[in-house]
Amino acid sequence: MDGLPAGEVVDVDALARDMARRAPGRDAFSTDRRETDAVEILSGLHEGRTTGAPVCGVICNQDARSGDYGQALRPGHADWTALLKYRGHADMRGGGHFSGRLTAPLVFAGALARQTLARRGVRVHAKIAAIGGVADAEIPCTPDAYGAAAALAFPVSDAAAAAAMQQRIRDARADGDSVGGVVEAAAFGLPGGLGEPFFASVESTLAALLFSVPAVKGVEFGGGFRLADMRGSEANDALCVRDGRIAAVSNHNGGLLGGITNGMPVVVRAAVKPTPSIARAQQTVDAAGVQTALSVRGRHDPCIVPRAVPVVEACLALCALDAWLTAGRGAERGEG
Amino acid sequence: MDGLPAGEVVDVDALARDMARRAPGRDAFSTDRRETDAVEILSGLHEGRTTGAPVCGVICNQDARSGDYGQALRPGHADWTALLKYRGHADMRGGGHFSGRLTAPLVFAGALARQTLARRGVRVHAKIAAIGGVADAEIPCTPDAYGAAAALAFPVSDAAAAAAMQQRIRDARADGDSVGGVVEAAAFGLPGGLGEPFFASVESTLAALLFSVPAVKGVEFGGGFRLADMRGSEANDALCVRDGRIAAVSNHNGGLLGGITNGMPVVVRAAVKPTPSIARAQQTVDAAGVQTALSVRGRHDPCIVPRAVPVVEACLALCALDAWLTAGRGAERGEG
Amino acid sequence: MDGLPAGEVVDVDALARDMARRAPGRDAFSTDRRETDAVEILSGLHEGRTTGAPVCGVICNQDARSGDYGQALRPGHADWTALLKYRGHADMRGGGHFSGRLTAPLVFAGALARQTLARRGVRVHAKIAAIGGVADAEIPCTPDAYGAAAALAFPVSDAAAAAAMQQRIRDARADGDSVGGVVEAAAFGLPGGLGEPFFASVESTLAALLFSVPAVKGVEFGGGFRLADMRGSEANDALCVRDGRIAAVSNHNGGLLGGITNGMPVVVRAAVKPTPSIARAQQTVDAAGVQTALSVRGRHDPCIVPRAVPVVEACLALCALDAWLTAGRGAERGEG
Amino acid sequence: MDGLPAGEVVDVDALARDMARRAPGRDAFSTDRRETDAVEILSGLHEGRTTGAPVCGVICNQDARSGDYGQALRPGHADWTALLKYRGHADMRGGGHFSGRLTAPLVFAGALARQTLARRGVRVHAKIAAIGGVADAEIPCTPDAYGAAAALAFPVSDAAAAAAMQQRIRDARADGDSVGGVVEAAAFGLPGGLGEPFFASVESTLAALLFSVPAVKGVEFGGGFRLADMRGSEANDALCVRDGRIAAVSNHNGGLLGGITNGMPVVVRAAVKPTPSIARAQQTVDAAGVQTALSVRGRHDPCIVPRAVPVVEACLALCALDAWLTAGRGAERGEG
Repeated sequence: MDGLPAGEVVDVDALARDMARRAPGRDAFSTDRRETDAVEILSGLHEGRTTGAPVCGVICNQDARSGDYGQALRPGHADWTALLKYRGHADMRGGGHFSGRLTAPLVFAGALARQTLARRGVRVHAKIAAIGGVADAEIPCTPDAYGAAAALAFPVSDAAAAAAMQQRIRDARADGDSVGGVVEAAAFGLPGGLGEPFFASVESTLAALLFSVPAVKGVEFGGGFRLADMRGSEANDALCVRDGRIAAVSNHNGGLLGGITNGMPVVVRAAVKPTPSIARAQQTVDAAGVQTALSVRGRHDPCIVPRAVPVVEACLALCALDAWLTAGRGAERGEG
Repeated sequence: MDGLPAGEVVDVDALARDMARRAPGRDAFSTDRRETDAVEILSGLHEGRTTGAPVCGVICNQDARSGDYGQALRPGHADWTALLKYRGHADMRGGGHFSGRLTAPLVFAGALARQTLARRGVRVHAKIAAIGGVADAEIPCTPDAYGAAAALAFPVSDAAAAAAMQQRIRDARADGDSVGGVVEAAAFGLPGGLGEPFFASVESTLAALLFSVPAVKGVEFGGGFRLADMRGSEANDALCVRDGRIAAVSNHNGGLLGGITNGMPVVVRAAVKPTPSIARAQQTVDAAGVQTALSVRGRHDPCIVPRAVPVVEACLALCALDAWLTAGRGAERGEG
Repeated sequence: MDGLPAGEVVDVDALARDMARRAPGRDAFSTDRRETDAVEILSGLHEGRTTGAPVCGVICNQDARSGDYGQALRPGHADWTALLKYRGHADMRGGGHFSGRLTAPLVFAGALARQTLARRGVRVHAKIAAIGGVADAEIPCTPDAYGAAAALAFPVSDAAAAAAMQQRIRDARADGDSVGGVVEAAAFGLPGGLGEPFFASVESTLAALLFSVPAVKGVEFGGGFRLADMRGSEANDALCVRDGRIAAVSNHNGGLLGGITNGMPVVVRAAVKPTPSIARAQQTVDAAGVQTALSVRGRHDPCIVPRAVPVVEACLALCALDAWLTAGRGAERGEG
Repeated sequence: MDGLPAGEVVDVDALARDMARRAPGRDAFSTDRRETDAVEILSGLHEGRTTGAPVCGVICNQDARSGDYGQALRPGHADWTALLKYRGHADMRGGGHFSGRLTAPLVFAGALARQTLARRGVRVHAKIAAIGGVADAEIPCTPDAYGAAAALAFPVSDAAAAAAMQQRIRDARADGDSVGGVVEAAAFGLPGGLGEPFFASVESTLAALLFSVPAVKGVEFGGGFRLADMRGSEANDALCVRDGRIAAVSNHNGGLLGGITNGMPVVVRAAVKPTPSIARAQQTVDAAGVQTALSVRGRHDPCIVPRAVPVVEACLALCALDAWLTAGRGAERGEG
């Protein structure tokens, strides 16, 4: 992870806690496979502070059972496209280069970004918005409300919604099946004016990062797809003056206008498809093109949405910090 | 536009037709402001073919009435964030650097990309998926079905849906209001194996480009957000062998697994928020922070979704061509 | 040109003067071909100040005689490599995409950068260091000494050296030949700490830009290749305290250590090969591979070094401004 | 190292040999500090072949004596600029992020690139061109001549020149001093047409990479700075037909015209300044700005040029492979 300011204190314990939120094997709703996801930091830290050099961490796989991965192409996985792209040379044990394991470094970098932002008054939190068609209740768009939800072991605000989601996961597992959901993240305290128009807008860079997370198939900001059904008079966020600064009365634009932050909370949602690895028999082919049926064994999450929460949070934190630091550049603007 | 192969024939008439699809003033559903959006090509073409040098075109504004744009910050527009970012130096006449006008060059480049792809057997088409809450009917995911819809003046497959959408637009206009919608684009004939894992995946690069289009607030691939409500056994695309090649029975992943094309049609949808410029009075502030009410005059589209269709199509074509050409690099792989 | 701060005053007259320094046809030592190199600014300026949007300027060719450019590959030109790369589709009239004409936009952008830097106390100047084996005298490494040389019509400090260089040019022209030389540029007043280690070092980014200038075949910083012959005790710049800040007694490292500015003047030199277009007969082949002799007609400079001076100056100014603005990001560092 | 084709066989022994060429402590002319520079490969290889995933290797420091590095700023080192940039937070033990140690990963990646190129008929070799003012003899620009020189323990073609260089190094060591030199590298067998005009030219990308190597202060291609003293009739490479293909009679342009390969050997030279760490007393200041004298203890090379040879070779191989693979993209061009 390059580009962190020098001299930042790194809270290694908080880092480990963030890693644990993504790590498998935490509870009844995730895979039995256990990884501590301990990070060995090789460079960039000295006496507990960043040095300005890139921070390099290594996370080793511990509980891998490569034998669980066979020759049939797993539907919904990148086995097929890896075969097309790498002509059979890809090492797809554990999903290879396309494995969800590769989100662990994102959480590592995101944890450093969150700590760095927190010292500047910016809080980034994520929670589950929906699982298996069950939506969480609406909560106030405040750092405390999101922070409280994010701190829960099963990060859903409404207890009844949480229970219903967990039941959906248990039902899916019992059926040898899986469920998907939606993760929502918000950043509070970002100043306005961050991001560049067009190709380096906050929306563009954050969406690009989120779509590099395996299983994410949709990204929306603020009202997102629901804005498509609204009228302008409803979707527009009326402006007012609050505490001496321009503010918006509502936040349908999710803190972003023209791809630039406006000082309101930045709100993003990512759709996570159901875990493609399921025990139920599926029709597929093997690498040689022979038709076969596949029941994916191995220890797979019936729902990866809870483990995706810190990943989406990390993506938002990374983009927010990058926009913030780049804005040092922007901040210089107009001074002449 | 850099990176086009040398020696490509450019069909200037088709290019002008594509530009006209986005241009304002075409019909009763768009703004009265008229721009021919004629492109003057300054470089990169010689005797009707690309030379390998960047193709540079200039599109001049013709029917601008800067007086229509005043000092109050228009809700839902980037006036506010431009003020924050550029400290009052931005030239916001016509929306300035954030204007939807800036999508005209995208359509120009996209038209060149579509022509280049067409010669390689790849077809890219877009159509309206929904306006004001009215959805188009489902159509077969074939180049002919999408091509037929895209060729319509109001690119909606189902005539009844089209009529209902147009009524929504008329109603909104009568109320001094606006409506949003969803645009859907598909690319047919792309080979498998295009795109890079993670940060340069087709999903990441295409989403980044789409989110640089003003008014786009959501992007999804294949089943997108609907996948979040499905079970794995439903969302997974079973694999089979068709015409001697591996294929998917369904296409919930929108032609992309792990961000890499799998040879199925690439399907993307973009949510377009309702035009923020509306005649109805809105609460806002001016640049000095004084509260005011604003009724946006000027000649604004009550619905920009039809004009966004060629823009989304252009984005998909540009990313598909880039992935295709980069795959020349990929194609070399594995030969050793 | 993107990334300029918003609100910068642009001195259009000074801009035109910089363009004229590069433009052909100024004096007896350059080509007879005349171009005013007037820039039409299409965007990014409003009421004499930058708006934050990209500044786009167009420079039209006026005095082109395409008939001067034939089918034989001109030795020393990119005709050959353009043929290899673009398979005969390149438009090589006037050198096409490889023409020295393409440095005009660099001078345009560089002039904007120099004005922006000047308002921040940074001065960038370039002069001729050598032509045809005749070197200019050593001058003090101060902004005034470099500025005085740069302001001369023939920017060489020492009058005798200037006369000898001009004689070399006249001799070469009389022989139907050409001569090369070395351009030296220096930036004064840059703060220390600009640039990033390794791949985005000031040396790396500036060298990359300079080597994109046609005819540049060598780049060195500070003592450059002469350092290779020195001992460490001679090459090292001893450190002292001057005006309360750390400074170097000498400047063999050209203001750059580890690719980062140290606050001393940044000094760079670029070797410019002799104009490859010469009237003397040369052995060559045509695009079909038939051996032929070529005497390049057309109106070519017997020495392009004087016209390369504002180009090298522009490259240094652009990299310096970019490093400066990026340092807004750096400046934020360490505050936590 | 990302972007390697999948399925490439990796010769781990040859890789280790290349690492050893750069490693310290090999002979009487380098530092006493010993590092085996063994690389532990963490990813991207499976059963001896590349998988298409990034190849990640870790090289651990073994024989570090941090106590050798004190508080005085070492003249000629990046200690000063690191202090300016990172405000005292940089970890400069061993030179920190600016250490020559950071060229070990370049050699690692370069070795993979060289093996990949060799299988495609491209050979990349480097040798010492000069040390302490003593130049090697001219040798034929053929892969065998360069390969023979590169294979020597002290890679200089002419035995007498080698002896004289070694004497210069011994003399410098005896004086508590150091000497610099020039490294020359050549790539044979690259096809024409590689590289992009302007900003991604082979000259630009290779120079950028070379200038990220600590101690490199000058880069030139082909005749380089000597071209500045030539006339056009001398510097131009006349063209002919050889073996049915266009070729150049001489190679003053170093295989590159307009930044694009022309099929002739690509020849580059890098000036390496003398090791700044010398035992002789030097005037300097400490981080607090107090004047002091410094005699750098520790085990430093009196001449790092021999160890820079594989680094320059690696840079050339990396750029050549990248241009080659990108040309898969170029190769597709013009087929339409």
